[in-house]
Amino acid sequence: MEELNFDDKGLIPAVVQDIDTGEVLMLGYMNEEALNNTLNGEDVWFYSRSRQEMWHKGETSGNYIKVCEIWKDCENTSLLVKARPTGPVCHTGNKTCYFQRIDGKG
Amino acid sequence: MEELNFDDKGLIPAVVQDIDTGEVLMLGYMNEEALNNTLNGEDVWFYSRSRQEMWHKGETSGNYIKVCEIWKDCENTSLLVKARPTGPVCHTGNKTCYFQRIDGKG
Repeated sequence: MEELNFDDKGLIPAVVQDIDTGEVLMLGYMNEEALNNTLNGEDVWFYSRSRQEMWHKGETSGNYIKVCEIWKDCENTSLLVKARPTGPVCHTGNKTCYFQRIDGKG
Repeated sequence: MEELNFDDKGLIPAVVQDIDTGEVLMLGYMNEEALNNTLNGEDVWFYSRSRQEMWHKGETSGNYIKVCEIWKDCENTSLLVKARPTGPVCHTGNKTCYFQRIDGKG
């Protein structure tokens, strides 16, 4: 934990990937408390930048994300969480937040 | 492009995923110019926050990342680039920057 480079707001980006399908589901931000909760519990926690509060992902929708593995990158500036979602991860109802392609080649 | 929410430094995080293996390779940051280059060329470009300059990934190592698809998330605050690396993505020589597991369950 003390090796991680949290940014000037005390946050680190965390990519969530479905461990079974490999699909990238979302990117959220963790502070130390969110990472501790994620390391020590069953579910993924974030810090909500818009609401400026701890965010137990799924607490509203019921679609929790179950943690399987947590990896850090070579420069300690981002995390990769391999996990199993219990429902759609995106608030739109999509399985992943990345459902809009922008390179126009699709 | 104008729909994307670049942050107060003019950057947006971009997750790079190997389109063939599904492996998450790295997370970098793009400014508008880097995204334009990535949209209009063959390779992934970033903006280097440490060097504060445009970063044509692979220009030093020769390990360019060939762009296949670019997706944005539901809130226009991050990108997912599905791509084919031409060599190890990480400066350590690892295929992915996420080679260190931190949850102690590995």
